[in-house]
Amino acid sequence: MPANKVRQIEVGGAQPYRVEVGAGLLGRVRVAERRAALIHPEDLPAGLVEQVQQTLNPAVTISVPARDACKTLEVMAGVLSRLAQANLPRDGAVIGLGGGAATDLAGFVAAAYLRGVAFYTLPTTLLGMVDAAVGGKTGVNLPEGKNLVGAFWPPKAVWCDTDALNSLPPAVFREGAAEAFKHGLISDPSLLERVLSPEFRPGGPLLEQTVADAIAVKAGVVTRDLTERGERAYLNFGHTLAHALEGVTQQALAHGEAVGYGMHYAARLSRALGGADLTAHTRAFLRWQRPQSLEALGLDGLTYEQVSAYMARDKKADSDGVRFVLLHDLARPYLLRVPENVLREEFAGWLSDLRTRE
Amino acid sequence: MPANKVRQIEVGGAQPYRVEVGAGLLGRVRVAERRAALIHPEDLPAGLVEQVQQTLNPAVTISVPARDACKTLEVMAGVLSRLAQANLPRDGAVIGLGGGAATDLAGFVAAAYLRGVAFYTLPTTLLGMVDAAVGGKTGVNLPEGKNLVGAFWPPKAVWCDTDALNSLPPAVFREGAAEAFKHGLISDPSLLERVLSPEFRPGGPLLEQTVADAIAVKAGVVTRDLTERGERAYLNFGHTLAHALEGVTQQALAHGEAVGYGMHYAARLSRALGGADLTAHTRAFLRWQRPQSLEALGLDGLTYEQVSAYMARDKKADSDGVRFVLLHDLARPYLLRVPENVLREEFAGWLSDLRTRE
Repeated sequence: MPANKVRQIEVGGAQPYRVEVGAGLLGRVRVAERRAALIHPEDLPAGLVEQVQQTLNPAVTISVPARDACKTLEVMAGVLSRLAQANLPRDGAVIGLGGGAATDLAGFVAAAYLRGVAFYTLPTTLLGMVDAAVGGKTGVNLPEGKNLVGAFWPPKAVWCDTDALNSLPPAVFREGAAEAFKHGLISDPSLLERVLSPEFRPGGPLLEQTVADAIAVKAGVVTRDLTERGERAYLNFGHTLAHALEGVTQQALAHGEAVGYGMHYAARLSRALGGADLTAHTRAFLRWQRPQSLEALGLDGLTYEQVSAYMARDKKADSDGVRFVLLHDLARPYLLRVPENVLREEFAGWLSDLRTRE
Repeated sequence: MPANKVRQIEVGGAQPYRVEVGAGLLGRVRVAERRAALIHPEDLPAGLVEQVQQTLNPAVTISVPARDACKTLEVMAGVLSRLAQANLPRDGAVIGLGGGAATDLAGFVAAAYLRGVAFYTLPTTLLGMVDAAVGGKTGVNLPEGKNLVGAFWPPKAVWCDTDALNSLPPAVFREGAAEAFKHGLISDPSLLERVLSPEFRPGGPLLEQTVADAIAVKAGVVTRDLTERGERAYLNFGHTLAHALEGVTQQALAHGEAVGYGMHYAARLSRALGGADLTAHTRAFLRWQRPQSLEALGLDGLTYEQVSAYMARDKKADSDGVRFVLLHDLARPYLLRVPENVLREEFAGWLSDLRTRE
């Protein structure tokens, strides 16, 4: 049997590393460190955990709560104590296996334990592969907000085993596609058609190359902008409203679904301010993604005031006003402080679009 | 009134910064950031806190438990939430005022909040000035051990106001002198006589230059060895037994006092292995420092087995055996794995020295 093709993406910067994308990778990976700790969410299929245990023989395996419930300082304290009890040495490694939440936690644990040990990421969700695994951002949440604590701590390597996606519920796969679609809008339009294709599915023929190309967009951006002052902001296309919707629903709306909604709002803003009309793309994505409806979330009466309160909180955090990522056209992003009346009018139009069944 | 003389020490590396030593500095410091958070231990004299509040006008002032009680992830979580509630922005600053424990905590808070904000240190103890304020090490303890979690996060500036030392109990001042004396042994013998001089005291004529020179030794070492692979290890002279004594007494023995004891043990080891006899220096320091006696600590029957268990734990952490910092002679440090029989014999001699009143 021939080895599966592995696609490689290089991420540059002070500590360059490689992202590998391929089927069956989890059965073949190797780390240089002799002792390692494996961290995974408790709801990960046991088969995936066992496969990595057999491949990497970790000194300790630590199960953490599923999804964002693991991203707390309290969970982190427990994980750090487990590492100390296992005598994980300074030249040991922390391996994060799972979705973006678990790998965000694992990365911050790696950054903080003994003031920093080697870190490897094995993302098992589409969102984790395309978004969380590249960029070096690690961290946990505070009661006051998401990702308010953490470190820039790049992994030594990222392995995206596309076989892991086979066990995902279809809605979770579609949720994760939002970031891939976003990378298409801001940088690589060839992704747009592919993400919506029936061949882009777990096990499908377009899966691996599309994942690799979507990762390459982010890898390129973070390589050119490691300090997050410039281009990296474009990765936030669709995220201003998305974060507000996540806040209003208290995270009941999944991140990828919120980004799907947020991209459509940003496309409307872009058009209103003289850019090309890209709303057909963002509506097509929403039809494909099928996010939870506002009605199902109890948000039938969602108002501009509700979301603007959250967007203003972003504003304070920046102390520079809330700036939106907009598009002149496909792959032509820019930053703009959008006038309040435009934000309000396009919110009404966005809400009307969502209520119009197609 | 002429301005007091301020002594300056430059610390190099990727993010160089300056340490200033002088009387009255806390009334004159300035930071570039518009919004800052001030963190101090609850037992710090109120006058010092108020002085810094007037000088730097922090947006929020946070009191934390005294000494090592503040170095926990639980305290850290509370401090981070306070920063978020105060909307401290990404371009804000965290200012650590107090002893080494509070500034260690404040530094790790600065490193982790929003993945890193500016950090300033205002040490108010001799130990904090000579040891904790330089080197970029920040962190907290775990139940499993000290300083097991943290970050390398250099401050933007360090201000050592020697007036702050006036409020220290004499025993705390003498405790902190251990690190200055150690810097004399490993690098700058001119410090030895000065540290033991009656003129080296809060308000004394030798105070400021001696503090500055002791800081300069550490600044030089960390500038040349930022990754802690080589020369920086020499700063651990006396610390292997010191950490064991702190462990055996469950931190009832203060760090500087433990280092005083540990230096004498390391001097005995150095002599036993063919080095110059420097034990007269280390005994003179112990006479001057007057640490808590083993009897007072309930350690009349201290055995080699008790301390070697702790030293072996260090061993596991290094996975390379326990290596001692020894001295060929003054200012000629080296690293050696000391044979077990020598460790045991010199422990007996060390214990006998402590029991011999002079």
